[in-house]
Amino acid sequence: MPAGGIGGARFLRGLKATLGIGAGAQENKATITVVGNTGDDITLFGLRICPDLDTVMYTLGGGINESQGWGRSGETFTVKEELAAYGMQPTWFGLGDRDAATHIVRAQMMAAGYTLSEVTEALCDRWKPGVRLLPMTDDRVETHVLVEEGQDRRALHFQEWWIRHRAALPASEIVLVGAEDSAPAPGVLEAVAEADIVLLPPSNPVVSVGSILSVPGIREALNSATVVGVSPIIGGTAVRGMADACLAAIGVESSAQAVAGHYGPELLDGWLVDEVDAGARVKGVEIRSRPLYMSDPESTAAIARAALDLALELKEHRA
Amino acid sequence: MPAGGIGGARFLRGLKATLGIGAGAQENKATITVVGNTGDDITLFGLRICPDLDTVMYTLGGGINESQGWGRSGETFTVKEELAAYGMQPTWFGLGDRDAATHIVRAQMMAAGYTLSEVTEALCDRWKPGVRLLPMTDDRVETHVLVEEGQDRRALHFQEWWIRHRAALPASEIVLVGAEDSAPAPGVLEAVAEADIVLLPPSNPVVSVGSILSVPGIREALNSATVVGVSPIIGGTAVRGMADACLAAIGVESSAQAVAGHYGPELLDGWLVDEVDAGARVKGVEIRSRPLYMSDPESTAAIARAALDLALELKEHRA
Repeated sequence: MPAGGIGGARFLRGLKATLGIGAGAQENKATITVVGNTGDDITLFGLRICPDLDTVMYTLGGGINESQGWGRSGETFTVKEELAAYGMQPTWFGLGDRDAATHIVRAQMMAAGYTLSEVTEALCDRWKPGVRLLPMTDDRVETHVLVEEGQDRRALHFQEWWIRHRAALPASEIVLVGAEDSAPAPGVLEAVAEADIVLLPPSNPVVSVGSILSVPGIREALNSATVVGVSPIIGGTAVRGMADACLAAIGVESSAQAVAGHYGPELLDGWLVDEVDAGARVKGVEIRSRPLYMSDPESTAAIARAALDLALELKEHRA
Repeated sequence: MPAGGIGGARFLRGLKATLGIGAGAQENKATITVVGNTGDDITLFGLRICPDLDTVMYTLGGGINESQGWGRSGETFTVKEELAAYGMQPTWFGLGDRDAATHIVRAQMMAAGYTLSEVTEALCDRWKPGVRLLPMTDDRVETHVLVEEGQDRRALHFQEWWIRHRAALPASEIVLVGAEDSAPAPGVLEAVAEADIVLLPPSNPVVSVGSILSVPGIREALNSATVVGVSPIIGGTAVRGMADACLAAIGVESSAQAVAGHYGPELLDGWLVDEVDAGARVKGVEIRSRPLYMSDPESTAAIARAALDLALELKEHRA
């Protein structure tokens, strides 16, 4: 399953619950491989930060700040405050002390020559997320946002646009720099080829799922798989985050139907929308509606189950 | 004034007090240049750590943990605990969260091409220690300790020997690796040449003052200056730290007299010892005795004043 940040991580937790993964001694054969977006990754203060991988790892490993959806529970911000006291830029990134240790370990391992895949596996040794977490690529790719202010046109790192400017600067383009020259990380294409089904969680269609699809080879591999997605848009609004601003940048309407159309029938076999979007239609995509708010673990597990069931049904149908 | 860690920093605070530096609007012409030992410096977790420079900077800048003598006041250890949770080695270094920010800034600036002198000046912009703090060298030198265990002979970084092993592994040799190829940092020789007097604080004679003297050119410059030292040994024991173990490694007895003899009359003009060591004699060195325990700011300022007065007297005498 390709996954972005908070929405992806919460959906994954629901999926694990509905599959009984991590529920003590219960035996089950189902396994989940997660392909995480790395386009948001950034190096700050010499630390290598992978927000989406970490959000998945912390959420599934029990270390997440639940109310916030990202970062560590019980987090403190001493290092950040001290860096600011030295006048160190940037000050807009919410670097937590606990989180910083993750980035230190990652930066050190990468400096020693380990790939991001290897680092991610090492970090997961601690967190035991109950899924196999793979970065979409071990190559360095970076989502940049082109912003126009009058005559001035400049590219910001996605994190600067997203966090510092709260996605409020109108974006004319969103580019995954380095994408053409990147390759899927080891195991990604194999996981897709071996997967019974592939689910797209309600992650950002542009900068999360979209980035993953931009890595050469991944979209092609998914075209041969049974893919069911869950709409991140309910009634014309992003459920969380600021996906609307990203969709606007690529000229896609903020609607469940438009996002399915953007993914297209080559990629998508099925698409789960909220009841308010029950009228959505995309030729070649099986659309089902049900409540889509992931308001608690139970409702999230039920959404994951519905996506799973639709995928299994469509796979059966195709066979 | 060449300075090592805790003893040097506390002595400096006394010296500032007795000179009235940093005492509000009071005008004074006296300035202090501190040449700090960098042989203890170490890179851990990608952070560049300069214990002696930081101890001076924090102590004089009001950020020191007073009871401990090193590290920041109000320190927390979240990053250290998290690194340990990942199994990151080493675990013996007491990396505080506040302190870590200093090392991040330093590592980042050095990676960007700034010299340690420039970094130190930038860090002091925040701490305003009231002295000019110079590293002894901008070159990379590192104190290694040769330890013999049976047939096994190995070199440890000074910090590993000092902190991890509490200087308890018998050292057969202490070497400042890189010393021959190092040069004094900009301003060091000039400061010595221009100084009215030079004081050696009660720092470790081997790994603090000794390291500074190992940088080619510094000892020679000091030979032409009026130099007064304060004994770090009282009644045969190091006042603080584990200087005895260092002296043993270089074959020098732990006594006020032996340390003065080790520095020698070429370097030392005067030597301040404690009353219990009043019998100390070294040919060519003017030895005075007085209470030398730096038990509080007042007694420390009085010791600094005594060193200062002795130096001014000897300088007068030489003229």
